[in-house]
Amino acid sequence: MADPIVDRLALIGIGLIGSSLARVVRQQGLARHIAVQSRRPETVARARELGLGDSYASDPADAARGADLVIVSVPVGASGTVAEAIAPALKPGAIVSDVGSVKTSVVRQMAPHIPDGVHFVPAHPVAGTEHSGPDAGFAELFRNRWTLLTPLPETDQAAVETVTRFWVGCGANVETMSPEHHDMVLAITSHVPHLIAYNIVGTAAHLEQVTQSEVMKFSAGGFRDFTRIAASDPTMWRDVFLHNRDAVLEMLARFSEDLTALQRAIRWGDGDMLFDLFTRTRAIRRGIIEAGQETEAPDFGRTPGAGKPDPAAR
Amino acid sequence: MADPIVDRLALIGIGLIGSSLARVVRQQGLARHIAVQSRRPETVARARELGLGDSYASDPADAARGADLVIVSVPVGASGTVAEAIAPALKPGAIVSDVGSVKTSVVRQMAPHIPDGVHFVPAHPVAGTEHSGPDAGFAELFRNRWTLLTPLPETDQAAVETVTRFWVGCGANVETMSPEHHDMVLAITSHVPHLIAYNIVGTAAHLEQVTQSEVMKFSAGGFRDFTRIAASDPTMWRDVFLHNRDAVLEMLARFSEDLTALQRAIRWGDGDMLFDLFTRTRAIRRGIIEAGQETEAPDFGRTPGAGKPDPAAR
Ligand SMILES: NC(=O)c1ccc[n+]([C@@H]2O[C@H](COP(=O)([O-])OP(=O)(O)OC[C@H]3O[C@@H](n4cnc5c(N)ncnc54)[C@H](OP(=O)(O)O)[C@@H]3O)[C@@H](O)[C@H]2O)c1
Ligand SMILES: NC(=O)c1ccc[n+]([C@@H]2O[C@H](COP(=O)([O-])OP(=O)(O)OC[C@H]3O[C@@H](n4cnc5c(N)ncnc54)[C@H](OP(=O)(O)O)[C@@H]3O)[C@@H](O)[C@H]2O)c1
Repeated sequence: MADPIVDRLALIGIGLIGSSLARVVRQQGLARHIAVQSRRPETVARARELGLGDSYASDPADAARGADLVIVSVPVGASGTVAEAIAPALKPGAIVSDVGSVKTSVVRQMAPHIPDGVHFVPAHPVAGTEHSGPDAGFAELFRNRWTLLTPLPETDQAAVETVTRFWVGCGANVETMSPEHHDMVLAITSHVPHLIAYNIVGTAAHLEQVTQSEVMKFSAGGFRDFTRIAASDPTMWRDVFLHNRDAVLEMLARFSEDLTALQRAIRWGDGDMLFDLFTRTRAIRRGIIEAGQETEAPDFGRTPGAGKPDPAAR
Repeated sequence: MADPIVDRLALIGIGLIGSSLARVVRQQGLARHIAVQSRRPETVARARELGLGDSYASDPADAARGADLVIVSVPVGASGTVAEAIAPALKPGAIVSDVGSVKTSVVRQMAPHIPDGVHFVPAHPVAGTEHSGPDAGFAELFRNRWTLLTPLPETDQAAVETVTRFWVGCGANVETMSPEHHDMVLAITSHVPHLIAYNIVGTAAHLEQVTQSEVMKFSAGGFRDFTRIAASDPTMWRDVFLHNRDAVLEMLARFSEDLTALQRAIRWGDGDMLFDLFTRTRAIRRGIIEAGQETEAPDFGRTPGAGKPDPAAR
């Protein structure tokens, strides 16, 4: 166990991300005191049952009071309200950070409320699952994943370093970029993929030619992977799309252009164009596996024995 | 181990599907003799090394000669040529089947070559992975998955029953439908999902704003799941799109219409429309899990400890 990185940590919001932080901070001894906050009494009660923190509050100001590091883990549409609520309670020299999947909008919402003498270091751990709430978190969520920091040019360098050490303590790799670039990168690697997953599941649910029962039974041909993504939290994702509108629309336009070209290739029987694209896309997957961001097990290791050369003659 | 269902089984093509069949047939004792065929000498040699069959051939007619059941597991664009090649060697009363992901076209290609007195029962196991070749197969691939049979109205009922028992012996559930309906169901549950996965990976590979290295490093936010699907075999999938053109184009048109509506909702900030869709899509996933076609582990159980309520206070 390392030395604590901060004395008092406040976790505002204790869902998948907040509770994963609570677990890894406890496991790695990254803070001496964890103050947990959630909006609804039932979530606070559940966090207490799970023993996620050292103190519990429903008012964000109560949790943030006296904290050295405050991490806001709520849907991005609520960031401004939360920043406003904690502002009066922040002590001088405190660091405020967040985990929101969108950064330009979060900076725009939160920065105006951050008092002088308090440091603001926006962050986004690129890690998650389709589940929500305090039960869904686990200490390993951030391990070997990337956390992106988007500090403003004027942000105190020591504060950025503290937040970096905090995330490294959680098992993550850390990289810094501008909020605008972050939002473009995430639009293509996360937001548009979620949008098209939600979309195809929606399309499949409303066909006259194919019943919902058929869609479910025969989903192992690819569809079920999309439904996992499309089972992600509606509030979180509504907020992501509303708050990263421009980058999402730009990437979506590119996706649609490319899809039109594919559609034309199918219509005209251009097998070479299809074969060529389908060959190039494999290189990206190899790169992701080499970058340590994916398992090599076929079908995500979902099928027993998958991929193990298993001499049949036994 | 059950009684063999057939005496002599010929597997024409010994890639992922053919070699999975070889393994489960051996394991379950479904045939007395497995005759293995593949086009290239190196694939035949590898199948021999793996001990997948009892005899080996590179000429499909040699493998099919005297077989009671012949299963053709080659890219759908090659089905006609293979049917023509095996036709002269088929014995009266033999059953010819296949595993192609498209059925109308396969019926159109193969049926004209099937001699009188030989039964033709087209089939499609809705199960697979992104890997190919004889090393990729495993005996459990078909377990608890669906195999769809698309016999013609005039097909011998006893032959359909034999093929049904064969697939049940492989661990599959079996359902019968028309080739046309099959192609529509698979267009939405498998073919269009693959197409949009290939497409988004292609889009991501060609952006000016975001580098390929960024796409790979930060892929854990959703993108990597699409790359698995987009790593599937280019030949197989080119053939699927060329041979299921009409149903794919029809379903793709529906997908695009729906995507345009989503795009408009994002542009105009219609959070309710987004929230409503994102809520409805969760029901489909629940249905798939209840139908036994998906694991409940978050992130496909890819993350250690995922989802297990893990009291942090230890
Ligand atoms: N899920 C992912 O995969 C993922 C990955 C990376 C980043 N993120 C980001 O992490 C943040 C939290 O996501 P999550 O998955 O942890 O969500 P979650 O599991 O749904 O938890 C949300 C937390 O925020 C609170 N909350 C919800 N609405 C609120 C509001 N209007 N005002 C104040 N508090 C509110 C909830 O409180 P109650 O339960 O008490 O209502 C709960 O404590 C989001 O900004 C998201 O973009 C998510
Ligand atoms: N992969 C899946 O997820 C999946 C799922 C369900 C159904 N299917 C269907 O199963 C069939 C086989 O797919 P697979 O994944 O098993 O493919 P695979 O692993 O690539 O194996 C293909 C087999 O077909 C042979 N072959 C390739 N091109 C040929 C040609 N032009 N003429 C004759 N033989 C040829 C190959 O022989 P050589 O290696 O000797 O060249 C090999 O034995 C396809 O029709 C596909 O639609 C696939």
